[in-house]
Amino acid sequence: MLIVKKFGGSSVADKEKIYNVAKRCIEDYKKGNDVVVVLSAMGKSTDHLIAQAKEINPNASKREIDMLMTTGEQISVTLMAMAIDALGVPSVSLNAFQVAMHTTSKYGSARLKKIDSDRIKNELASKKIVVVTGFQGINKFDDFTTLGRGGSDTTAVAIASALHADLCEIYTDVDGVYTADPRVVPTAKKLNEITYDEMLELATLGAGVLHNRSVEMAKKYGVELIVRSSLNKNEGTLVKEVCKMEKMLVSGVVADKNAARIAVLGLEDSPGIAFKLFNHLARHNVNVDIILQSVGRNGTKDISFTVAEDDLDEAVGILERHRNTSLHWENIDIEKDVAKVSIVGAGMMTNAGVAAKMFEALYNIGVNIKMISTSEIRVTVLIDEKHVNKAVQAIHEKFVLGE
Amino acid sequence: MLIVKKFGGSSVADKEKIYNVAKRCIEDYKKGNDVVVVLSAMGKSTDHLIAQAKEINPNASKREIDMLMTTGEQISVTLMAMAIDALGVPSVSLNAFQVAMHTTSKYGSARLKKIDSDRIKNELASKKIVVVTGFQGINKFDDFTTLGRGGSDTTAVAIASALHADLCEIYTDVDGVYTADPRVVPTAKKLNEITYDEMLELATLGAGVLHNRSVEMAKKYGVELIVRSSLNKNEGTLVKEVCKMEKMLVSGVVADKNAARIAVLGLEDSPGIAFKLFNHLARHNVNVDIILQSVGRNGTKDISFTVAEDDLDEAVGILERHRNTSLHWENIDIEKDVAKVSIVGAGMMTNAGVAAKMFEALYNIGVNIKMISTSEIRVTVLIDEKHVNKAVQAIHEKFVLGE
Repeated sequence: MLIVKKFGGSSVADKEKIYNVAKRCIEDYKKGNDVVVVLSAMGKSTDHLIAQAKEINPNASKREIDMLMTTGEQISVTLMAMAIDALGVPSVSLNAFQVAMHTTSKYGSARLKKIDSDRIKNELASKKIVVVTGFQGINKFDDFTTLGRGGSDTTAVAIASALHADLCEIYTDVDGVYTADPRVVPTAKKLNEITYDEMLELATLGAGVLHNRSVEMAKKYGVELIVRSSLNKNEGTLVKEVCKMEKMLVSGVVADKNAARIAVLGLEDSPGIAFKLFNHLARHNVNVDIILQSVGRNGTKDISFTVAEDDLDEAVGILERHRNTSLHWENIDIEKDVAKVSIVGAGMMTNAGVAAKMFEALYNIGVNIKMISTSEIRVTVLIDEKHVNKAVQAIHEKFVLGE
Repeated sequence: MLIVKKFGGSSVADKEKIYNVAKRCIEDYKKGNDVVVVLSAMGKSTDHLIAQAKEINPNASKREIDMLMTTGEQISVTLMAMAIDALGVPSVSLNAFQVAMHTTSKYGSARLKKIDSDRIKNELASKKIVVVTGFQGINKFDDFTTLGRGGSDTTAVAIASALHADLCEIYTDVDGVYTADPRVVPTAKKLNEITYDEMLELATLGAGVLHNRSVEMAKKYGVELIVRSSLNKNEGTLVKEVCKMEKMLVSGVVADKNAARIAVLGLEDSPGIAFKLFNHLARHNVNVDIILQSVGRNGTKDISFTVAEDDLDEAVGILERHRNTSLHWENIDIEKDVAKVSIVGAGMMTNAGVAAKMFEALYNIGVNIKMISTSEIRVTVLIDEKHVNKAVQAIHEKFVLGE
C-alpha cells in the first residue's frame, strides 16, 4: 500500500513529538508500505517568522513573506528525515522545488495546479520514507508560494491523488470528526464515516478539523481521507463520497463564534444595488455568509449579512469608501457578539422537518434566532454568542446524536 | 556600473544591522548602479540550526544537514529584500534554486560549477536590488548543497564573474587587509592594493579576511575584489592581478596559532614511505603544511610536519591505524603550543635576503625557529606559540611596514 500521512505543526513541535511521528511512519513502513509524510512548520515557528517579517517591514510584499514562510516547513521536513534515519530507516526530505509542486501565482493563497510525482516515486522506489513540505508551492515565476490556511492538508491530498495513494491520513489533535465539539457537548460521539459534502459544510462552518479546500480536492479526485489523532491509535473518521452505514438524519452540530452581523440601513432601492454591494466586498476577499434583505423606510431597503468577525473592520471600511459614489445608504449597524450554529447531514436531503426540529430545540431553551440560512444538507442560525454552548447542547440532544 | 556586494552573518544579525546594509545598497542604487547583494545566514542562526540537527540526530546525513542549513540564508535574504522595499526601493530575494547555482554533488563542501545569470539579469532589468543567498547551491540531484567555510565569498565572486560585474565588494568587520593584525601590531597599516597571489597566501595562512577559494576563483576569472568594512565608509583593500603601486618588499606579516607539529620518528627507510604517509592523511582531508625529513637512528628516518591543531587528533589516529600495516615507525612526538608566522609579498620574488632579514628579526628578540618553509612570495617559520605576538611585532618593525 502507498500511504500519505499528514501531520500539523503541533505534532512536530519538539524532539519528542518529531520522534513520535517518525515511529508511526516507520510502523507503516515496516509492514511493507510505501510511506510519504507531509508536514507543516514546527509549532509556533510560522508565528515567529511572521513576527520577524513584521519587525523589518510591516507591509512586506506577499512574495517575500512566502519566501520567508517556506523555510518553516523545510526545517521540519529535514529534522523529520534525520529522526527517521536515526531510527534506522532511510529517509529523504523534499521541498516544493524538489517535488515540483506547481501552483497558481497568487502569493499567500495560491492553489495547487500540478504535482510532479517522479522524484517522490524514485525515492519511494529506493525504499525511503519521503518527507515533503506541506503548505508551499512554486509558481510560474519560479517563486515560492504558500497555500493559505489548511494548506498542508491540501498538499497531502494532492500528493495522494498524484501518486494514486491507497490511503491519505490527516493527523490532528482530535480522534476524528464528532457530532459536536466534545468540550461543549460531553456526550458527543465520534463519527466513523462522513461524506465529502458533509465534511465540506463542517469545514466551511469552522469545525477546524479539515480545511474545505483539501476536502474539495479530495472529493474532486476521489481521495478517501482518514482524520485521526496523532496522540493515540484510535480509528478516526473516514471521509468519502457515499457512506455505507445507515445515515443518521443529522451528522453533527457545529458552532462558529467568528461571526459578526452588518446591517446596511436605508439603501437606495435601485436595480443591482445588492450586486454592487457584495461585489465590492468580494473584490476585497471578504466572504459573506447569511444574507437578509428587507424593505426599509421611505422606499429604501435594508440588507443584513454576516461576515467573519476578523473581516468586520475591512467590510465596514469598504462600505464607507463607496458611500455616496456607487452606494447610497443612511446608516450601518453592526453586531459582534453573535455566533452561527449549524446542523449538517446528508440525510436532510430526503427528510422534511429537520429545520423545524432545530428551531424547536432553540425555542425550548429560550434562544432567539436572528437570521437563518439553509443549504441542501445544512441549516444555520445566527444567535447571541453567549447562548452558543447551551444551544449546541440542546440541538445535539434533540437529534439524539450522543450514544 | 554593476556592483556585487557581499555581507557576512554578523552584518545582518539584527534589524538595525539589516537596515544599515539596506541603506548602503540603496546608496549605490541611487547613483544609477545595478546592485546585487549576497548574504550569509543571520548572526548565530547557522549555529542554532546545527544544534537543532544535533539534538535530533548527531549523525544526520550531510544531505539533510545542507537542506536544513540553506534555510538560514533564505531567511536573511527575504528580510533584507523587505528592508530595502521598506526604504522605497523595489527588491527581490533569490535562493540557489531560483538563481540556479549549480555545484558539484558533495554535501557540506560543494564547489560552484555554473551560475545561470538570466533570472538575476531580468530582475536587475526591472530596476530591483537583487538579494541572493550565499553559501548554498544545488547539485545534479536537485538537492541543496553548501559550499563550506567562506562559501558566501565564493558565491559573490561567482556571481560577479557570471554577470561581468564592474565591482565585487566583500564586506567584513575590518577596514581591509593590513600589514599585520592591528590588535597585535598597533602600527599596522592598511594596504590599498594587494595581488591575488599575496591574498591567497594570507588567506591560506589564516588571515581570516577572505577565504582562499573565493580568491582563487577571483584570480581565475579576473574579478577584482574590494575588501572593506561594513561599519564605516573607508576605502578598503583592492585585490587584483598586478598592483600598480610601487611594491613594498613585504606586504604583510601574519600569524596562525591553529598549528601543531607531528614528528614521526624511526620510520622504516624504504622508497615511497613519505608518499604513503602523506597519502593516508590526504585521503582523510588532513592538510599538511611545513614538512621536514631527516635521517634517524639505525637506518630509519624521521619526518616532521605541521597540521592545523583541529586536525591533530585525527592525524595521529590515522598514523596509528596504519602502523605495522603500510607504515612502520617507532614513536610519534607531538607539539601543540606552536604557531606559524609568515611574511608575504610579491616583491620577494625579485629580492634576495628577505628570509634572512626575517630570521634576524627573530634572532634579535631571542625567538627560536623550529621549522622553515618558503614559497615564491612567502616565508613561514614555526615558533613557540607564546612568542607569536612579539615575533610579529619585531618582524613588522624590521620591514618598516608601519607608517
